[in-house]
Amino acid sequence: MNFSSKLLEQAVIEFGRLPGVGQKTALRLVLHLLKQPETDVVRFTEALNRLKQEIRYCTTCHNIADHTICEICASHKRDKGLICVVEDTRDVMAIENTNQYQGVYHVLGGLISPMDGVGPSDLQIESLVSRLAAGGVHEIILALSATMEGDTTIFYLYKKLKDFGVQISTIARGIAFGGELEYVDEVTLGRSIATRVPYERSIA
Amino acid sequence: MNFSSKLLEQAVIEFGRLPGVGQKTALRLVLHLLKQPETDVVRFTEALNRLKQEIRYCTTCHNIADHTICEICASHKRDKGLICVVEDTRDVMAIENTNQYQGVYHVLGGLISPMDGVGPSDLQIESLVSRLAAGGVHEIILALSATMEGDTTIFYLYKKLKDFGVQISTIARGIAFGGELEYVDEVTLGRSIATRVPYERSIA
Repeated sequence: MNFSSKLLEQAVIEFGRLPGVGQKTALRLVLHLLKQPETDVVRFTEALNRLKQEIRYCTTCHNIADHTICEICASHKRDKGLICVVEDTRDVMAIENTNQYQGVYHVLGGLISPMDGVGPSDLQIESLVSRLAAGGVHEIILALSATMEGDTTIFYLYKKLKDFGVQISTIARGIAFGGELEYVDEVTLGRSIATRVPYERSIA
Repeated sequence: MNFSSKLLEQAVIEFGRLPGVGQKTALRLVLHLLKQPETDVVRFTEALNRLKQEIRYCTTCHNIADHTICEICASHKRDKGLICVVEDTRDVMAIENTNQYQGVYHVLGGLISPMDGVGPSDLQIESLVSRLAAGGVHEIILALSATMEGDTTIFYLYKKLKDFGVQISTIARGIAFGGELEYVDEVTLGRSIATRVPYERSIA
């Protein structure tokens, strides 16, 4: 692109580094910000700078937090003996939105992925082992994505955790609510038949 | 969404104000920035702050520039008697990318749109009239979008400029290169037949 201004070009390059933001989108966003009052732009950049400088990670579950212990880990209403292991903070938000879960979390910070050079030591696995070793935990739910990376991580965690005598579960996989059979992929459908549940349990 | 951190929520809200960025995308972008080194985030926010604080608009053509006169208006190679009127700086970039145009520009800063409350006085129209009144201009090309707002603006500008004795052109409308006839909409196809050009001219 032929930029009429170096400042404009620099801002577009910076925006274009964000995932999923191409040069045209970056230009559109930058020109939008340029039309806003300066106070709005300052508020935008301040929010990002503050986030980066002041953000904390919960020392127990490694979720993003404003303090050294996150609200969930600090809550007396949560079952500290039930730990849901997730990839990142988005999964915590998604599960919290269901209002179905009363336990606590453990945020791995990623999934094992040899392709991306992410090994077990890059994830918060040792601290999960420590939480189990400290005792008081009765169940671990592995709520990871149904992908190759997710399955690899589940397998690794299972081997690492199985000797603690704690119940280890994975979240149910099957057809989604509202899903029509004919559109379900064959792997999901096959697995959902293999792991069928008695009717009485399905309505519990 | 249930944010585990106020700082995170604030950053997501700010990103979500950008056009076309929903809350989920905003969260994805913010979490991406959070994973980057602090220097990268600072460079990102610095680029935006500098852009907003230091950007200039060319006093002649109103294009975004680093100085009071943009590079195009300052160039001796450009035909100052040929002015291409465009909506915004993206159009200047698009036309510059064609390498077909040797004149100068006039950036209106928008199009007349009663629906959005944009009237002629909100655009750089008076200064265009002044440029014509100053003399030395032989042709004006109105290169505006083929939308209702574009056509309204062309009509307004034509009435305003026609008495200066300057050639006023609009860019050709028709089927795009590589466009297959059967997929062209009927308005475009109808107009492209009505405004057909002699073959000798089409290959000039």
